[in-house]
Amino acid sequence: MSKGLPKREENFSGWYNELVKKADLAENSSVRGCMVIKPYGFSLWEKMQAKLDTMFKDTGHQNAYFPLFIPKSYLSKEADHVEGFAKECAVVTHYRLKSDEKGNGVVVDPEAKLEEELIVRPTSETVIWSTYKNWIQSYRDLPLLVNQWANVVRWEMRTRLFLRTSEFLWQEGHTAHENKKEAEEETLKILNIYSEFLEKTMAIPVLKGLKSENEKFAGAEETYCVEALMQDGKALQAGTSHFLGQNFSKAFDVQFATSEGKKEFVWGTSWGVSTRLVGALIMTHSDDKGLVLPPNLAPIQVVLIPIFNSEEEFKLVTKKIKDVGEKLKSKNISIKIDDRKNHKPGWKFSEYELKGIPVRIVIGPKDLENNTVELARRDNLSKEIIDLNEVDIIIPKLLKEIQANLFNKAKVFREENTYYVKDYKEFKEIIKNKGGFIYAHWDGSKETENLIKKETKATIRCIPMDYNINPGKCIVTGKKSKGLVIFGKAY
Amino acid sequence: MSKGLPKREENFSGWYNELVKKADLAENSSVRGCMVIKPYGFSLWEKMQAKLDTMFKDTGHQNAYFPLFIPKSYLSKEADHVEGFAKECAVVTHYRLKSDEKGNGVVVDPEAKLEEELIVRPTSETVIWSTYKNWIQSYRDLPLLVNQWANVVRWEMRTRLFLRTSEFLWQEGHTAHENKKEAEEETLKILNIYSEFLEKTMAIPVLKGLKSENEKFAGAEETYCVEALMQDGKALQAGTSHFLGQNFSKAFDVQFATSEGKKEFVWGTSWGVSTRLVGALIMTHSDDKGLVLPPNLAPIQVVLIPIFNSEEEFKLVTKKIKDVGEKLKSKNISIKIDDRKNHKPGWKFSEYELKGIPVRIVIGPKDLENNTVELARRDNLSKEIIDLNEVDIIIPKLLKEIQANLFNKAKVFREENTYYVKDYKEFKEIIKNKGGFIYAHWDGSKETENLIKKETKATIRCIPMDYNINPGKCIVTGKKSKGLVIFGKAY
Repeated sequence: MSKGLPKREENFSGWYNELVKKADLAENSSVRGCMVIKPYGFSLWEKMQAKLDTMFKDTGHQNAYFPLFIPKSYLSKEADHVEGFAKECAVVTHYRLKSDEKGNGVVVDPEAKLEEELIVRPTSETVIWSTYKNWIQSYRDLPLLVNQWANVVRWEMRTRLFLRTSEFLWQEGHTAHENKKEAEEETLKILNIYSEFLEKTMAIPVLKGLKSENEKFAGAEETYCVEALMQDGKALQAGTSHFLGQNFSKAFDVQFATSEGKKEFVWGTSWGVSTRLVGALIMTHSDDKGLVLPPNLAPIQVVLIPIFNSEEEFKLVTKKIKDVGEKLKSKNISIKIDDRKNHKPGWKFSEYELKGIPVRIVIGPKDLENNTVELARRDNLSKEIIDLNEVDIIIPKLLKEIQANLFNKAKVFREENTYYVKDYKEFKEIIKNKGGFIYAHWDGSKETENLIKKETKATIRCIPMDYNINPGKCIVTGKKSKGLVIFGKAY
Repeated sequence: MSKGLPKREENFSGWYNELVKKADLAENSSVRGCMVIKPYGFSLWEKMQAKLDTMFKDTGHQNAYFPLFIPKSYLSKEADHVEGFAKECAVVTHYRLKSDEKGNGVVVDPEAKLEEELIVRPTSETVIWSTYKNWIQSYRDLPLLVNQWANVVRWEMRTRLFLRTSEFLWQEGHTAHENKKEAEEETLKILNIYSEFLEKTMAIPVLKGLKSENEKFAGAEETYCVEALMQDGKALQAGTSHFLGQNFSKAFDVQFATSEGKKEFVWGTSWGVSTRLVGALIMTHSDDKGLVLPPNLAPIQVVLIPIFNSEEEFKLVTKKIKDVGEKLKSKNISIKIDDRKNHKPGWKFSEYELKGIPVRIVIGPKDLENNTVELARRDNLSKEIIDLNEVDIIIPKLLKEIQANLFNKAKVFREENTYYVKDYKEFKEIIKNKGGFIYAHWDGSKETENLIKKETKATIRCIPMDYNINPGKCIVTGKKSKGLVIFGKAY
């Protein structure tokens, strides 16, 4: 029930936390920083997985599985990489418990200390490149296009359900190529898959671009990203695709014989999206009544609810409901019929609004007389009465319309919250009072980026793909700027 | 290539290890006891997951996700449970690395020691029942039918790819019920799902039964299992379904209000199958030439290979091959066309035999003249020439026939290797010289079971579902036996 859901305007973060709980998406576990993804929340992740997995496979990628544990020495082989992850590693040091001699239950058995500590993978580049060394001898073994769906752990001090948790679920792609060009193309191909998935399936408009040196992946040459704007004006990094150059092939000595018989280091990419996307979904579309799901991602697209005053009416109405349900199923629409008698229709309406089901169909005794049904849209909360015989024609169109409407609404919101600033004063005012994406000139230096972050909490979300077309002067230092970059406060 | 694959007769275990590697299924990783599941091996697991997931969902189960880590104190709450798993736990003690002051790369930061150690889940009963405590208040919250697909870790000293690895992938179902009867029904429902899946999809005949006290799950009241016989005469436990009674609800204080308003402890079940099934698949059907896959599980059911001597022939033949491929795809048959020019047909034949593709179709210049194709079956290695126009009628039938043939062959093998013994002498002879399943009378005591295990390495694989119908005398002690139980040496 939406009772007690804070208003977004008043307390966005409280609204988010309550919504995640009340809509049965996830909850904090008793293990610090780790969440329990509840069945309804998990069904959203499953829908995302299914679609992305198909997109990866359609572009030649295969799934595999690599170990959860990484020897500490592996993590150290790429200097930037270990620097980036060392501070948030869960470390396995022992492999056995034993009964406490003093009778205090079980304790770690000091005899069972590992010679080398194992790190619970924060990401798998090191363990995968150590494996690729054996898989790649010749150009005939390339490209190697592998993805894995897995859990990873990055120890976080401040966690938020879906957005930042110590353990999260994700996919991580790791590819190996003969030359730089092909690896760069792969990096961009995946970036485009992410953006297509976010825009067409999740109805979330994204900006594509490059990360600055400060924000790029530890161990990458270049990190591309897709960035989305949340309803509170904060940016969310929704996915990243890294061009690794030869960093990991050099760290793990992965060379191949070219077609001319020379030895060369392999070129790599890696890329991932995570359960964080569930957070992005919520914060893009949902409202004060609860979740709003785009039809292409909704586990249930249409809920059907009968209204009745007698057992006789119940029978007649549910018979019709079932007929309509069958018709919709035959159009590949996923439905749920809620004919429970221990809950009133009003309770059910609120419940499915909270859960974000795109369309509600209600049939009552009057509808039987008139051969009609009542349709309600979750996205704009509008209702209308339609002819029962037209249901299977109207609903598929309506689902498409809702999908498009959610995307357009989010895009309009982003456009209304995108600013071009001329000076740092304006920049600071907007960041402080409005949020959103801010296009501004920047001199390209880490120092300026750090200063802006320190003074405003805004960071460079990305350097747009068409960065170089519009030179100017840095809003902070007045130095030369190659083009506009996009700032924002980030999740 | 099958070159170098040992013969099963001479060295079954060497044959298995080599086959797993050469067929690109999996390999040992550099992390002790953890395997890398390669893309082809993973595609088998994906097929298993897809089918089982559908079967679970069709019976009302939902997926969710619980934390990887379990606080040490949780594991200790159920006495038998901790006793069973304490000796094989990977323990996380720290959450940060730091640069070594002596310049030796990174070391564990002693400042970042966890107050309470975390165990990498060996199974999730404890963390899940601690969560269920908050999810279950009333009989209206029951039954709770949850499954999760996850990785688990049980530290193993002697590991074998798929069969016994420190980390493995599995599904674990955890359900909660109002009463004993419903929980027992769930336990058996899942046992039947497992047996149906193994027999119909994997073509592996199984025996269903109950584990003895010695062999049951640590924390269960009763463990049911499905047991399969491998080609070397050893038994493999393919799946288990546990009736937990109220053990975990009592350990975690999970009570519910009944419809009469009383407070009662919840009844539980848990059940799982793992990547071990890939090992069962291999050891049931495969032969000295390589893998043999049942069509219902094969990622590629039919491989199509052109034979040609000139570019002209190549064009004509591959055109036909593609036509046939399209026809098969339209019948929902998964195909692969291998028209690579840098490998000879003979090489390809061996390769796909090694990979276990159920059917091979070859089209050469002569087939063009005669309007024929050559069909080869992987299961019995037979070949025949058939009319090209009949391919899309013959192949679907053939795939069904191969599926049935593999199951029947395995069932005949099991029957030929199943013995009923009258005395312990005969028992010992058979176990030593033949292996297989042995039905024998047992007095029901742990002592006798342990003695048999010590002297013969055989254990009670299961107590059959119809145990009580046939009383007799124990083959070891001569004491009363309620019925025949099934012994075998186990993986």
